[in-house]
Amino acid sequence: MHSHQPQTLQWNGAEGGYLTLIDQTALPLNVTTVDCRNLESVVHAIRVLQVRGAPAIGIAAAYGICVGLQTIDVNQCTMQQFEERLQHCVDQLANSRPTAVNLFWALQRMQDVAQTMRQAGQLPSQIMPALLNEALAIHDEDREMCHAIGKHGATLLDHGQGVLTHCNAGGLATSEYGTALSVLFSAQDQGKTLHVFVDETRPLLQGARLTAWECQQRNIATTLICDNMAAQVMSEGKIQTVITGADRIAANGDVANKIGTYGLAILAKHHQIPFYVAAPSNTFDLSLSTGKGIPIEQRSSDEITQGFGTQTAPDGINTYNPAFDVTPAELITAIITEQGIISPVSSAAIAALL
Amino acid sequence: MHSHQPQTLQWNGAEGGYLTLIDQTALPLNVTTVDCRNLESVVHAIRVLQVRGAPAIGIAAAYGICVGLQTIDVNQCTMQQFEERLQHCVDQLANSRPTAVNLFWALQRMQDVAQTMRQAGQLPSQIMPALLNEALAIHDEDREMCHAIGKHGATLLDHGQGVLTHCNAGGLATSEYGTALSVLFSAQDQGKTLHVFVDETRPLLQGARLTAWECQQRNIATTLICDNMAAQVMSEGKIQTVITGADRIAANGDVANKIGTYGLAILAKHHQIPFYVAAPSNTFDLSLSTGKGIPIEQRSSDEITQGFGTQTAPDGINTYNPAFDVTPAELITAIITEQGIISPVSSAAIAALL
Repeated sequence: MHSHQPQTLQWNGAEGGYLTLIDQTALPLNVTTVDCRNLESVVHAIRVLQVRGAPAIGIAAAYGICVGLQTIDVNQCTMQQFEERLQHCVDQLANSRPTAVNLFWALQRMQDVAQTMRQAGQLPSQIMPALLNEALAIHDEDREMCHAIGKHGATLLDHGQGVLTHCNAGGLATSEYGTALSVLFSAQDQGKTLHVFVDETRPLLQGARLTAWECQQRNIATTLICDNMAAQVMSEGKIQTVITGADRIAANGDVANKIGTYGLAILAKHHQIPFYVAAPSNTFDLSLSTGKGIPIEQRSSDEITQGFGTQTAPDGINTYNPAFDVTPAELITAIITEQGIISPVSSAAIAALL
Repeated sequence: MHSHQPQTLQWNGAEGGYLTLIDQTALPLNVTTVDCRNLESVVHAIRVLQVRGAPAIGIAAAYGICVGLQTIDVNQCTMQQFEERLQHCVDQLANSRPTAVNLFWALQRMQDVAQTMRQAGQLPSQIMPALLNEALAIHDEDREMCHAIGKHGATLLDHGQGVLTHCNAGGLATSEYGTALSVLFSAQDQGKTLHVFVDETRPLLQGARLTAWECQQRNIATTLICDNMAAQVMSEGKIQTVITGADRIAANGDVANKIGTYGLAILAKHHQIPFYVAAPSNTFDLSLSTGKGIPIEQRSSDEITQGFGTQTAPDGINTYNPAFDVTPAELITAIITEQGIISPVSSAAIAALL
């Protein structure tokens, strides 16, 4: 994003500071921010998607620990009080959304810092600033990972290509630049001209609201389509590459990502179009051998029936609203990480790279 | 639809009468009707989708000729005046929407009646009631075709199946019962219990607004999903059959239907699920050897960006909004017509049946 705009996430001040987020539910019409000064506001921001995108959720959760611990006086409290509060913060944040593994990864990093310092005999007043440093490090590292993903992925794109993307895996889903969109932005930085087709991504229209906006900010030629038009656009020869982000990747390369990704991967295969997933290495969950074990968040019916203020389905209609689906590894041409490109996608190739 | 509800289309009175339509843009929240007493209101109703669905458009166009001719006094006018007015009505109606062939088929039938009678020396005052009779016949025949499609198609469904449908090919798209939905309703009438999954069908949500409503009226177990969830629902084993309508079918069996149909057919093939198209024989356009010749209506950008009153995409974003796509015959397991089932789908099988 351009420098005159707010950052997706920003920490203000020292240990006593607070987290400022772009309110992504107000985009693209209003670029406004939300200040999160307590645990509850961070949990709420994640749950209602004021902040969303697997890497951004991880960063927000790390900062959520920092604001959450401000309710106790680290100069007065006992270690037990400190640890109980930390555990409470972790539990609340872990319950905000179930699918993106980066959330749990970030919380684990924060817990590990606290545990290591406690075992070394350090006090809450010493652990508190270290936790903020860890959150800032998670944020900084994400920035570097996004740029590295872009650099690796840009080698896969050619000048003049049409690229289809789904949902938002851009700067708004990360610290900046994004994952899938970082590949596009990096290719553009290298002088390659691309045409981006953006799936609107029902029900919450992250593609229409967020990705279209980000691409517009960067002056990339962009065409917004409804999700059900992707096959037609592919058949017209307008798409040479499909690229999406990921919310969790199993050890074998099965990818959980925004609902609709799996269908796109099938359509890409049918049209012999390469299908790429771009994600930082903290998106891998090597504890799961396949995607079958990934928990899929089910969201409320009114996201489908009451989209954006208007009721568009009959009263009492039953819906099914999974927020994610799982794309099997065999449909994925390559996974682009900050450490390099995994292709073909296999347990062995993943284990070797990570 | 139940008898206490208005009919999709209804002619009131004799030659001086008018057409009443359910206003499908107001569904599902309001069941209201529109009276069309002149040519312009019928053209408008077709163009803004107050009436939609290939067979229903054809019936509306036939009645549109009847109200359109009311501006001239058939007891006073010359044959040339009558024919000029008829041609004007045909031209206006033919320009309302380009893809559904039933529109042109119905207009041709009306013109053929007028031409035959003129050649037999009959007067405008005699042709006028004959044209109304032809429109009523088109309407009646559609009713019979829908029921025959349902009867043939129901043999393809088994008790307990999950059936996915797209857009609305129900009673609202026809005289009554529908095409794809007639198959479901007929199977239900035979005592087969089905579970219908309804694609909401962006951008205008005919699935959410119309099909969900029709299924609810008939007490069929119904689950509404977003278009991009179809692949996931298939992979969960919940779908045993996909069935859609058609707006135009080429001589080789390529099917133009609501945008998203082609993608669904690919997803069905990937999951080894049969993909059926249900349509009356007047949906075939044997003048086109393949689907490549079918004109695809492009609709306005604001259907995508301003869905249902709320702007959900950035100002100035480019969109692509084809209303239809073409599914190649090789992805279609069978075409269900009122004359029987065509399977496998081929030029020879189509020519043999029709």
